[in-house]
Amino acid sequence: MQKYQYLKLADNIESGISNGNFKVGDRLPSLRNMHIRTGLSISTVYHAYIELENRGIVEPREKSGYFVRPRFPKVFPPLEIKDLQPRPQKVGVNLLAQSIQEAIRDPHVLPFGAAVPSMDLLPQRQLASSIRTIASRYTKKKEMNYGDPTGIKELKQEIVKRALGYHEDVDEEEMVVTNGCMDAIHLCLRAVASPGDTILVESPTFTCYLQLIEDLNMLALEVPTDPEKGVDIEQVRAGIDRHNVKAAIVCPNFQNPLGFEMPAAAKQEFVALLGNKEIPIIEDDIYGDLFFGGSRPRTMKSYDKDGNVLYCSSFSKTLAPDLRVGWTLPGRYLQKVKRVKFNTVIASSKFNQLIVADFLHNGGFERHLRRLRSALLNQAGNMSLAVGRYFPSGTKISTPRGGYVLWVELPEGVDGLHLFYQAKQNGIFIIPGIICTSTERYRNCIRISCGHPWNNQWEEGVRKLGALISTAKDD
Amino acid sequence: MQKYQYLKLADNIESGISNGNFKVGDRLPSLRNMHIRTGLSISTVYHAYIELENRGIVEPREKSGYFVRPRFPKVFPPLEIKDLQPRPQKVGVNLLAQSIQEAIRDPHVLPFGAAVPSMDLLPQRQLASSIRTIASRYTKKKEMNYGDPTGIKELKQEIVKRALGYHEDVDEEEMVVTNGCMDAIHLCLRAVASPGDTILVESPTFTCYLQLIEDLNMLALEVPTDPEKGVDIEQVRAGIDRHNVKAAIVCPNFQNPLGFEMPAAAKQEFVALLGNKEIPIIEDDIYGDLFFGGSRPRTMKSYDKDGNVLYCSSFSKTLAPDLRVGWTLPGRYLQKVKRVKFNTVIASSKFNQLIVADFLHNGGFERHLRRLRSALLNQAGNMSLAVGRYFPSGTKISTPRGGYVLWVELPEGVDGLHLFYQAKQNGIFIIPGIICTSTERYRNCIRISCGHPWNNQWEEGVRKLGALISTAKDD
Repeated sequence: MQKYQYLKLADNIESGISNGNFKVGDRLPSLRNMHIRTGLSISTVYHAYIELENRGIVEPREKSGYFVRPRFPKVFPPLEIKDLQPRPQKVGVNLLAQSIQEAIRDPHVLPFGAAVPSMDLLPQRQLASSIRTIASRYTKKKEMNYGDPTGIKELKQEIVKRALGYHEDVDEEEMVVTNGCMDAIHLCLRAVASPGDTILVESPTFTCYLQLIEDLNMLALEVPTDPEKGVDIEQVRAGIDRHNVKAAIVCPNFQNPLGFEMPAAAKQEFVALLGNKEIPIIEDDIYGDLFFGGSRPRTMKSYDKDGNVLYCSSFSKTLAPDLRVGWTLPGRYLQKVKRVKFNTVIASSKFNQLIVADFLHNGGFERHLRRLRSALLNQAGNMSLAVGRYFPSGTKISTPRGGYVLWVELPEGVDGLHLFYQAKQNGIFIIPGIICTSTERYRNCIRISCGHPWNNQWEEGVRKLGALISTAKDD
Repeated sequence: MQKYQYLKLADNIESGISNGNFKVGDRLPSLRNMHIRTGLSISTVYHAYIELENRGIVEPREKSGYFVRPRFPKVFPPLEIKDLQPRPQKVGVNLLAQSIQEAIRDPHVLPFGAAVPSMDLLPQRQLASSIRTIASRYTKKKEMNYGDPTGIKELKQEIVKRALGYHEDVDEEEMVVTNGCMDAIHLCLRAVASPGDTILVESPTFTCYLQLIEDLNMLALEVPTDPEKGVDIEQVRAGIDRHNVKAAIVCPNFQNPLGFEMPAAAKQEFVALLGNKEIPIIEDDIYGDLFFGGSRPRTMKSYDKDGNVLYCSSFSKTLAPDLRVGWTLPGRYLQKVKRVKFNTVIASSKFNQLIVADFLHNGGFERHLRRLRSALLNQAGNMSLAVGRYFPSGTKISTPRGGYVLWVELPEGVDGLHLFYQAKQNGIFIIPGIICTSTERYRNCIRISCGHPWNNQWEEGVRKLGALISTAKDD
């Protein structure tokens, strides 16, 4: 009888979590409070909490009670490689992507589209302190003149110090500071490939890579990509055997839009495979510090002995998008990247670099990252549960291992682009999957961002999206 | 007898100016002081000063006496158009230009190379005040997120307000803020031309245009350019008739390296000529505010009714090179430039834009510009006189109408590149003319910067350069 009661309480709490009454990251009421609230004995409540912990739904934290754990309904099957033969494609996403990206800047829509943190999650106070420090030193003569095109030493040193955890033997002399990560990717791509060349990318991939490839009149070779493990190595092998691939752009850690972490062995294999053919790899690691698991994953760069990986990252997803401070370690393409950088913008402003360097040195970046990761994990968990609650059956959701976004495959026949327009009219911004490819795929997919702390407005937004999809499905 | 004495004094002062005892911008001793110093009557001294004023060598300033006027020995003959037939050329300046540009950053050389102001001429105090204002507001949430790829409204409005003086009907909606002027030119060039295309440029031209053209695998068509009037219109006509020119990059106001101001009629004719053929004109106006004459020259943009001119400029030469804030008004290519900008760097940092906007609004930019222009004019005058003093006969010097640089043609047979290496060993940095062309021309030319207030170290540097040239000539 007593067993029955604790199980019943556990079941009640579990369904309260599923239907959103408890959010991921919430603390359960204390034993005493729940005892008062339910009339059950302290011991029964305690057994219910232990039961929930055993089910993997809550976790105890020392001296602060039981918390609802992030959960991702496992609903995305592994990739089926159909008899796809990836072929180099002309890219034509810019017109559509541009009109969609302009909607991002509307402050009146629910921002389920942009892969950026809520500004509330950024370390405003500590950043303000770095800004004050630098402001008082900046107008010294030395700082106001053109800087070194490769960036300032203080910043490079701070970045190298941190990077030792996830790739080895980095030297600040091998680094070029850039105006954000896309600038780094742009400089690297211009350094290693020319118009008409074929660039290997994951499929689906980040829209901005495709837009850049289109602008530079290059072709995209999209390789099937598993939502849990990343790009399919056999398909990569076949692709580079069959086609004259000039470079690859990949995001092995918490890829946008799928959120996977490529396993270490697969990273190594990819590096070896392209290294043998001397096909340069542009590695986008912008989300690398935003892992949901226990440790910082390694980079492809860390497995590269020949300087064939051009590593790119930035502080836009972790510190402040507007600072536009990124960097690249372009391996053996260093001289060429330096040259393209100089010929494009002469140099980056030292001002922003000095601020980031000061923050990295004094601002408690690691502590901030711990908080940010924990918030993102909770947000992704809440978003995932809410999608599970409100979207029609047949919906598949990715299980991101880090980063900002969920990839959602809607039931067959639902048009993601149509949904984008409908959602926009309803004040909700999402990314239609169709702009994450240069093919005709992903028409029934959307990307949803989890950058914001969960609240009722968000819950309501997902509910509304679900209703729109159900209507579309029934049409 | 008295007439003789005042003429003798005038002659003495004039030769004192020529041999550098009086510098351009210096005040002559007061009438009373000169009377005491020379024993001549006040009236004789006064007549001598009037005589010097009539000769155009000094000028009176209300309540402060007589000042030595900038003078440019007229030693550059108009361009002889030999039977040149400009032809599209592959460009190959990067390797050499890069190695030369790296020498710029050596703080131990006399900076006769870089076309930048001495940091002492920048408005440090007012800029510091703008920085403090912006620093305290920047960490508001709104500012830390990605900005509009085209830039912030406050800055665009301030730029438009100023621009009304030199081109009409400018609308902030037509503007794209960039990371400096070269970034603007780079975005515009990528927007209007593709690899393999031919780009018309002045000859000699600014090295960085050539480096960019080379990086983008385009060809340069160099058109003979008069050191006083700019590009030769008949040669332009012949060039665009004979060759498939895809765009032009020109610097009609105080061109780097020649320093000319293209006459208004020539600007109009150029705009009409290229407009008829729908060849877009990328106009670099970075030096436009640094005129030595009485008024701000108009831009090509101001004569363009069809949106065929892509206007580019920045604050790097007037406020602070490191801020990296430039802009473009790309006319009918606006959408394409916006798109290339987004696809290259997403957006520019709002931080630096806010600082410049605040400075333009509150910092006394026009007053600062008046002082800067006056300093540059004096510096160019002193440099020109010193070159006249120390360089061997047969040397020809440009007469810049604004900006930072002198173009010097050395006697036949003197190798400017060899001189660059020798000068560098002697702690002096100059630009060899050979990197201002993709042809074999200008081997005996150098570019000398006048960005720094004149002093004995500078005088000594020019003397040493002159000695090196005389030795080289005699070899």
